[in-house]
Amino acid sequence: MFKKLLVANRGEIAIRIIRSAQELGIRTVAIYEETDKTAMHIMKSDEAVCIGSGPRKDYLDIDRIVQAAKAVGADAVHPGYGFLAENPLFSKRCTDNGLLFVGPPPQVISDMGSKVIARKVMTEAGIPVIPGSGVLPDGQDGEKEALEFARRHGFPIMIKAVAGGGGRGIRVANDTAELVQGLRLARSEARMAFGDERIYLEKGLKNPRHVEVQVLADGHGNVVHLGTRNCSIQRRHQKMIEIAPATLPSLVEERICEDAVRAARATGYVNAGTVEFLVDSEDQYYFLEVNTRIQVEHTVTEMVTGVDIVREQLRIAAGEGLSFGQDEVKVRGHAIELRINAEDPKNGFIPNPGHIRIYQSPGGHGVRLDGCIYQGYEIPRYYDSMLVKLTVYGFTWHEAVDRLRRALDGFNIVGVKTTIPFYKQIVQEPDFVHQKFDTSYIDTHPELLDYREEVPEFDRLARLIAEINAYGLNPYAERS
Amino acid sequence: MFKKLLVANRGEIAIRIIRSAQELGIRTVAIYEETDKTAMHIMKSDEAVCIGSGPRKDYLDIDRIVQAAKAVGADAVHPGYGFLAENPLFSKRCTDNGLLFVGPPPQVISDMGSKVIARKVMTEAGIPVIPGSGVLPDGQDGEKEALEFARRHGFPIMIKAVAGGGGRGIRVANDTAELVQGLRLARSEARMAFGDERIYLEKGLKNPRHVEVQVLADGHGNVVHLGTRNCSIQRRHQKMIEIAPATLPSLVEERICEDAVRAARATGYVNAGTVEFLVDSEDQYYFLEVNTRIQVEHTVTEMVTGVDIVREQLRIAAGEGLSFGQDEVKVRGHAIELRINAEDPKNGFIPNPGHIRIYQSPGGHGVRLDGCIYQGYEIPRYYDSMLVKLTVYGFTWHEAVDRLRRALDGFNIVGVKTTIPFYKQIVQEPDFVHQKFDTSYIDTHPELLDYREEVPEFDRLARLIAEINAYGLNPYAERS
Repeated sequence: MFKKLLVANRGEIAIRIIRSAQELGIRTVAIYEETDKTAMHIMKSDEAVCIGSGPRKDYLDIDRIVQAAKAVGADAVHPGYGFLAENPLFSKRCTDNGLLFVGPPPQVISDMGSKVIARKVMTEAGIPVIPGSGVLPDGQDGEKEALEFARRHGFPIMIKAVAGGGGRGIRVANDTAELVQGLRLARSEARMAFGDERIYLEKGLKNPRHVEVQVLADGHGNVVHLGTRNCSIQRRHQKMIEIAPATLPSLVEERICEDAVRAARATGYVNAGTVEFLVDSEDQYYFLEVNTRIQVEHTVTEMVTGVDIVREQLRIAAGEGLSFGQDEVKVRGHAIELRINAEDPKNGFIPNPGHIRIYQSPGGHGVRLDGCIYQGYEIPRYYDSMLVKLTVYGFTWHEAVDRLRRALDGFNIVGVKTTIPFYKQIVQEPDFVHQKFDTSYIDTHPELLDYREEVPEFDRLARLIAEINAYGLNPYAERS
Repeated sequence: MFKKLLVANRGEIAIRIIRSAQELGIRTVAIYEETDKTAMHIMKSDEAVCIGSGPRKDYLDIDRIVQAAKAVGADAVHPGYGFLAENPLFSKRCTDNGLLFVGPPPQVISDMGSKVIARKVMTEAGIPVIPGSGVLPDGQDGEKEALEFARRHGFPIMIKAVAGGGGRGIRVANDTAELVQGLRLARSEARMAFGDERIYLEKGLKNPRHVEVQVLADGHGNVVHLGTRNCSIQRRHQKMIEIAPATLPSLVEERICEDAVRAARATGYVNAGTVEFLVDSEDQYYFLEVNTRIQVEHTVTEMVTGVDIVREQLRIAAGEGLSFGQDEVKVRGHAIELRINAEDPKNGFIPNPGHIRIYQSPGGHGVRLDGCIYQGYEIPRYYDSMLVKLTVYGFTWHEAVDRLRRALDGFNIVGVKTTIPFYKQIVQEPDFVHQKFDTSYIDTHPELLDYREEVPEFDRLARLIAEINAYGLNPYAERS
């Protein structure tokens, strides 16, 4: 096993990685921007290096990060998710500088980063792929091809950036006018967001479920899957709540997992990855994309399988074989994960940075927290607004939902508005409770935003004590 | 399901119970003594009743608690552990007042509370019992019988109070002199502690392991076990660290679990209970006692089976059947639980109450916390010194140990001395790491107390930042 790991990320995922590394006896190095110097990942690591003034630009600066890794004598780099995690240049630069990159080889990142290449690889491997176009030519020719595509497959049609992924770079067209206009808009958005204006088309499914399979592959040819996740609850193509397993019919569950393993083999995959699918109302599934990194929602899979995915990532990067075979992976119970953000749901979910005056969190059976805040923390306004990921487990689905509701009630965060009251609405909404949701869930349940601001637990306590004093619930007051 | 539950306890176990009750939609009522009015279990419950001035006496006052339960309109009472949990009068008084008691019927509590009756029941059920005497007669006759017992079985001999249990009311005699003197001392100690001076003898095993089996029985004749726990690491017969499973040879594991189910059936058991055994160096096991309540260490069983034991307790008390059968119980991985107390290990583990200035706790994969403190809490000096139970899970035993070490490092408790530095010694001690321990472990490893006081994480951070500033680990300082 290597000795020293630089974690090229911040926030909860940096802490997540530091924890597994420390458990393996690896010394950890955090990086941070000056504008992020009070962040918790710095406190959790064994060493910390300031890589620049920030904000944001230095966490994206390959040169600075690779130089920092060499300066502190790191053997390996873990990219986390976001920032440089799916940048093949970063992976290559690490490798070229003698640093183990905790993730797949640059060629795999690059191939899967191109949605067109990914679709081609999967088609060749015999995995169902949604009908789609190749890269569209520019101008009139592209428009003509798009209209022909619409005639053949009907609407809706998804216009996607070749360089997109993770819900970014997607437009939906519901008719010819939206399609023609969307081509131009999508092209210019893609150029701005990814520096690559190439786009392609996919047949849109009506309210599909988003189902993904976690895979792990070592450098010795072993590939296993850790079952499915349902990540259909999304807001603007961004996941909000994820569950494991996806609870598909068992035959479909089996086939989709086998196809995910086949997909990983077809790409020459090494390390942890996610094969994403869309599933229609008849349980037909179609390949969507491969995420070549650890994902936010990996915690639900860890809850139901008991496998530490980051521990395996580190072991694989060090050249070790997977520590278990497919037959040792057993999915038990149900897990739900959600992201508690400093945002105001009633105000378009705009970020709400500020000072955390009180932070108390739930615990007990089946509750896992992956946080990056502490009482007294001043949330900088430059970074993403996630405060803590809550993951709950239940022996049954309903037990998991019961626990989620209880755990949400157990938070006491004073100082910033959070997404907690919005989630409290969801956990009592009947469609959610009965696990009836697809990607249209948030849009079709606008009433979820209709709530009163929550009463912090301390206020509740004060009220309770006042009530007791006033109404004499204590039958022994005069005797004591 | 009933509607309102009074929790007749305090501290972490009260919170533990409140959590499962709230998950089932049951309204919860906490009780508290005036001297305990800032306790966290009060904040976590839906209602709270002051039952007296305290300290301690009111938590033991059956009248006050039953009256409080009736005054608030509770349907049921959960006793937790300690206090009145194994008092058959309390169970009976609840039942007589129309309150469901979350535990076995009074007769079972009473029978199992008498160690002599318990031994008799188990012998008749064909379960291996350590050779023992009946209740010893007083004076010379008792002494004569004890010497005869020693001739037959040899030393060591355990002198036990009939009314003892949970490690209390036990003396060891290693020779004739200790035996003769011990009889008198044990009798007077038993009178003082339990108001019942009756004693009996058991053949002592040399450095046995303490292994117990968690059982659940509903009112419809279903009894299941949830596997084994090894609770051998004890200080003065009080458990300090517990693990699940006990990792006995698989045939022994199977037989001991079957015997525990047989034991529960033989007693007419209903609700959750623990059948305790001693296991000698040849893996022969002997019945020790039945604990007729939830135990501190139930969390390790929950971690490896995924079953919420308190949820089942509440469902059983409401007359429902067990929500799963024996074949649905699968033990996966390894769990370790330890009790973080406000005590000074270097000073004979004396309680160290005080003001919690900073409280930060670990999280992430495989970490469960059952705590009862918060930043700003002033620990009262009247109650037990447990601050938080830490339970970790690992896919393998070594992963669990790695995680335990990491989680202990993740605590930042400022204001009181705790047992954390002592536990940090244990997690790197080779016998513990290789799971080689029996009940002699703490006594045979005095070097565990040889540690330096820990450096709180905040100080570590300050040092780290100072180092960075001084030695310029930041290779970009001049560029930013």
